[in-house]
Amino acid sequence: MINLFTDEYFMKKALQEAEIAFDKDEIPVGAIIVIDNKIIARGHNLTELLNDVTAHAEMQSITAAANYLGGKYLIGCTLYVTLEPCQMCAGALYWSQISKIVYGATDDNRGYVKMGTQLHPKTKVVSGILAAEAANLMQRFFSKKRK
Amino acid sequence: MINLFTDEYFMKKALQEAEIAFDKDEIPVGAIIVIDNKIIARGHNLTELLNDVTAHAEMQSITAAANYLGGKYLIGCTLYVTLEPCQMCAGALYWSQISKIVYGATDDNRGYVKMGTQLHPKTKVVSGILAAEAANLMQRFFSKKRK
Repeated sequence: MINLFTDEYFMKKALQEAEIAFDKDEIPVGAIIVIDNKIIARGHNLTELLNDVTAHAEMQSITAAANYLGGKYLIGCTLYVTLEPCQMCAGALYWSQISKIVYGATDDNRGYVKMGTQLHPKTKVVSGILAAEAANLMQRFFSKKRK
Repeated sequence: MINLFTDEYFMKKALQEAEIAFDKDEIPVGAIIVIDNKIIARGHNLTELLNDVTAHAEMQSITAAANYLGGKYLIGCTLYVTLEPCQMCAGALYWSQISKIVYGATDDNRGYVKMGTQLHPKTKVVSGILAAEAANLMQRFFSKKRK
């Protein structure tokens, strides 16, 4: 039997969130959180509309997922996010003890890998899933902004 | 003329927030944000009550201060926090471009200094203000928890 619920399947859902951010004139990053192949949280960057640097897609998804689960630890959950998390989001993911992080495009400037932010030792990471699509959306956004 | 508005003066206000957290059975960390000697945000740790790892005192204060100012950057602001910020909070402070951070007790395990989290290059840091009071409150909390 084929598995419909691949990392690509869920990353497409995160990309849909990123597109919503794009349409709101926000830096287009989207995230979802999944447990047992069920999406329990969706979020997209809202830093401009909310006037709040903490309103990254991941932060909102972490809060929403914990609210859904009724507990603050995201053990058994996977975060799908279109862009590599920053220090803040990686720091929040550290506290959440989330089981898996799947991200699309890398952020060579402000991503957690370059910044050296530590994730929880139990967290597995997969990167590069639909990276070209995520990067393309970012490029379209910044090219629109420069006009 | 003597200056009433010292770092100690404002840290006492942050400690009052930490005491509120203590009384709610939360890890007792408190924070305030000040601009032009005026307190524009107060927060205390609420991770247990809100079931949310992102509900640190600093995160709530950053959101509240930006809401008060009507803009997401905290330029000209000072954060007073009783405990050294973690990776997540330091990462949020990085994005906020806050002008000054004053913290009390150090966190040798999960503080941003040991974790290597980067603050914004324009952010000044003062540490050790009323550190004994902040550390004492933490010790009382964990000793109560162990009983």
